Amino acid sequence: MKKIINDPTKVVDEALEGVAAAHPDLLRVNLDPPYVVRRDAPRPGKVGLVSGGGSGHEPLHVGYVGMGMLDAACPGAVFTSPTPDPIVEATKAVDAGAGVLYIVKNYTGDVLNFETAAELAAAEDIEVQTVVINDDVAVEDSLYTAGRRGVGGTVLAEKIAGAAAERGAPLADVVKVCRRVNDNVRSMGMALTPCTVPHAGKPTFELGENEMEIGIGIHGEPGRERMPLEPADAIVERLLVPVISDLGLSSGERVLLFVNGMGGTPLMELYVAYRHAARFLADRNITVERSLVGNYITSLEMAGMSITVLRLDEELVDLWDAPVHTAALRWRA
Amino acid sequence: MKKIINDPTKVVDEALEGVAAAHPDLLRVNLDPPYVVRRDAPRPGKVGLVSGGGSGHEPLHVGYVGMGMLDAACPGAVFTSPTPDPIVEATKAVDAGAGVLYIVKNYTGDVLNFETAAELAAAEDIEVQTVVINDDVAVEDSLYTAGRRGVGGTVLAEKIAGAAAERGAPLADVVKVCRRVNDNVRSMGMALTPCTVPHAGKPTFELGENEMEIGIGIHGEPGRERMPLEPADAIVERLLVPVISDLGLSSGERVLLFVNGMGGTPLMELYVAYRHAARFLADRNITVERSLVGNYITSLEMAGMSITVLRLDEELVDLWDAPVHTAALRWRA
Repeated sequence: MKKIINDPTKVVDEALEGVAAAHPDLLRVNLDPPYVVRRDAPRPGKVGLVSGGGSGHEPLHVGYVGMGMLDAACPGAVFTSPTPDPIVEATKAVDAGAGVLYIVKNYTGDVLNFETAAELAAAEDIEVQTVVINDDVAVEDSLYTAGRRGVGGTVLAEKIAGAAAERGAPLADVVKVCRRVNDNVRSMGMALTPCTVPHAGKPTFELGENEMEIGIGIHGEPGRERMPLEPADAIVERLLVPVISDLGLSSGERVLLFVNGMGGTPLMELYVAYRHAARFLADRNITVERSLVGNYITSLEMAGMSITVLRLDEELVDLWDAPVHTAALRWRA
Repeated sequence: MKKIINDPTKVVDEALEGVAAAHPDLLRVNLDPPYVVRRDAPRPGKVGLVSGGGSGHEPLHVGYVGMGMLDAACPGAVFTSPTPDPIVEATKAVDAGAGVLYIVKNYTGDVLNFETAAELAAAEDIEVQTVVINDDVAVEDSLYTAGRRGVGGTVLAEKIAGAAAERGAPLADVVKVCRRVNDNVRSMGMALTPCTVPHAGKPTFELGENEMEIGIGIHGEPGRERMPLEPADAIVERLLVPVISDLGLSSGERVLLFVNGMGGTPLMELYVAYRHAARFLADRNITVERSLVGNYITSLEMAGMSITVLRLDEELVDLWDAPVHTAALRWRA
């Protein structure tokens, strides 16, 4: 295992200390239990957005804490759900009386622990609603999941629900728009190489010299098919066709196209993939109105990518374009 | 070689087509010869900033074309200097009568080809000034360089000179501030793994299971020392001590600290490194006033990082903070 780390058991803590040192203007970092909240939390009258999950998918979720996106993120150990305790602490730190939304990727551990945290928060009179993201079309149930996994769509849900909350929407409306994102987003991923969890010290799986895995999960969970490596355009179609089909996209619709790197893939390759994905959609008279290309939900140093398509409407475009200021996503209109 | 590409000889062209498809609001992409200009170029009365170099270091330079940074970028083949022809074309496309600044990383091919382009542009009555960036303290001369190599400091020079140009500074002043950045910035890099140039098809060098290379260049050029892997904090010191010493930093000074990933290193590891670098500087009473952590000047999928320190003054902080809107760096005050 070759990594820039000190103690494999302290990677998450030390990375959080680095985050705290690098972004004091944006974030407050609590180490025990570990959670990160936006500097100015709680914001009076604002619905609080809390997400979290196993570490190793950076910049998700800590990189998305800030104005216009998440109010707090709870990073677990690498590829391991956070326990209820930090989730409850983060909930209390961001609650301003308007309620809190949990955005949870659909993995059994995450769902259970956020559920427990919601019960504990309710016992302290904090209203919590939860939206579970399950956008991965690759497999129905998987190694860590009942039902579909939550992957790239999570980034889009956090941005869009975050914009609604920032504008002062009440909890019911923030929940509604977050569900609308989940209902209208689909993803699928693939890998060229595995990754190595620091405390495990060996690759999560093995792939042959000339093999790729289609439909892989962000923890290296098995996908649909292990097969010989193909040219980029063919790989793009293997991901995009099921995404389009499952989403029921038809001619004339507008989408956000998100080509995401798994961590170890050069940006150049992501743009090569984007090129064909955009053309493939254009050929079907589907308009790509917004795009996102880069490493936004990763699997440590895994080489590979995922493609996410979100069906857009006026409101979603408007919320996507709204100002955001986090460590990893930052813009103003 | 496992990559998401089609034809290894067409990677740069296809990636540029992807860039054109993803960022039509920001950029105009010319394919033959290859160069990228900001959508609204030329800007009347504004000094034009042109950079470029071999591809494979993305988002450098194409990702830095836009408001407040570069007016044009000329990507060569992977790890190969662009020829004078696209540089001249890009120069003409951005020149608005106020002159053009070339920001050139110190590699022999780049320096020669930008020099030739400047002469050709002069023949067409375009005033061109050049600033050569040579911030890498690792080695004096190297495989592709007479003198020190240009690395991470280039990103900072492009941002800061770009802000000065955007505010309407005349060419002489933009040159001056760009030189001031180069005079006050130093970097050093290291690698855990090599990378593979697509058209070569095999790794640029080899490193043992438990080895790292300290002082490596962004093309995998040999550095100072090949040695057994060490903990992150020790690696950070191996990079930071020569940087601080060469810069002559002393107690009470203010800096920008930039921890850059080489492409294949998880963000988590970069924050682990940032943590110790920030502490190490703080212990010496050096104030980190601005930070940048992420993959900004890469070597394809190489695992490794570089550390760059820029000595700050009021004007440099102000120009760093100025609005920027490119594919890879984007903010407003």
